[in-house]
Amino acid sequence: MSFEDLVKARHSAVNFVEDEKMTEEDFKAIFELTKTAPSAFNLQFAEYLVITDKEKKERVKELSHNQFKIHTASAVLLVMGNKNSIETTEVEKIYGPMKMLKMMDELEYDMTMETIEKYSEGLKETPNELAVELARNVGLHAMLFMLSAKHYGFDTCPMHVHNVDKLRNEFNIPPHLEPIMMITIGKSVDKVRSRGYRKPVGEFVCFNGY
Amino acid sequence: MSFEDLVKARHSAVNFVEDEKMTEEDFKAIFELTKTAPSAFNLQFAEYLVITDKEKKERVKELSHNQFKIHTASAVLLVMGNKNSIETTEVEKIYGPMKMLKMMDELEYDMTMETIEKYSEGLKETPNELAVELARNVGLHAMLFMLSAKHYGFDTCPMHVHNVDKLRNEFNIPPHLEPIMMITIGKSVDKVRSRGYRKPVGEFVCFNGY
Repeated sequence: MSFEDLVKARHSAVNFVEDEKMTEEDFKAIFELTKTAPSAFNLQFAEYLVITDKEKKERVKELSHNQFKIHTASAVLLVMGNKNSIETTEVEKIYGPMKMLKMMDELEYDMTMETIEKYSEGLKETPNELAVELARNVGLHAMLFMLSAKHYGFDTCPMHVHNVDKLRNEFNIPPHLEPIMMITIGKSVDKVRSRGYRKPVGEFVCFNGY
Repeated sequence: MSFEDLVKARHSAVNFVEDEKMTEEDFKAIFELTKTAPSAFNLQFAEYLVITDKEKKERVKELSHNQFKIHTASAVLLVMGNKNSIETTEVEKIYGPMKMLKMMDELEYDMTMETIEKYSEGLKETPNELAVELARNVGLHAMLFMLSAKHYGFDTCPMHVHNVDKLRNEFNIPPHLEPIMMITIGKSVDKVRSRGYRKPVGEFVCFNGY
């Protein structure tokens, strides 16, 4: 499918075909495309908890106002931001290989590490800014996930996360991972569905000033 | 180009071909695809200020640590979240047409408006949550913008916004629009460029619990 056709075909699914299974291989193919998403300083903040297990999925449903689509979806994903991504040990995991593979020289490496350190210190002083950084990066990543899923024939629906503490407890989610959104995924019952009303371009785009 | 080829071809551009012009028509084509992005309750939070004017673009460069790519880019975009999107008058602009076009009946309309009102009240009580909501929605939108731009032959680079108050003053940005990120756009000087190191899928995806 061309990019344009794919973008036009993607809709938020409201109901999924029950008992449609997705394998770890299905997810790995989708994530191989998704991982190319850009992130601030390439720090790759986004992490996913993929819940395919039926009973565990029901538990997510109970904690999510019993939204029925979680029951019929092949899986529900928690999309999270990793607060540790700004820690030096994590930053080195990204930039170490790049220095080793000669994708950057020693000087460039040192300058980059210094820039990122300043940026990290700023975020640590302002937790609200870190929360915004995680949400922004997760948003970028999750959109590419949903398009990549559609490319492989799967429909998705982005959702809010509810009862974060209970979910954290239920799935042993470590404290450095901050749930930002959920995505249900599977095969949509409706093959064709009219899209929700969209504002015309002129209403959300302005040129050269207000 | 196929979706897969397009995703693999998209890189953050580090340098743009100077004097490569983009017209309003170029942008409108890109935004026609971008506007299909999903958003919380379809409230379409994302707004764009597109700066193509050379002098104004230089002013953004000055306010952005003089990053050179803003000078050579065909345009720099401020991607913003609209805080008014959760106000009833704005919500009615989205759902009014849907009721009128019989995309939803009276009962569904009333229930939706009630649900959104509760959600809005919650966000108004917690400004940090609203900031996260804007960032998450802008992230989703901006990723589709960058892919759509690539589809039409344009390269992009997502960037942090600096000196928000000065930018607000310079371009008369109204207080309800919150700058979340910037995107430079144009034609990349480098046709092929190795991508920054990406973590393997197993390092950011987990199945069924930790």
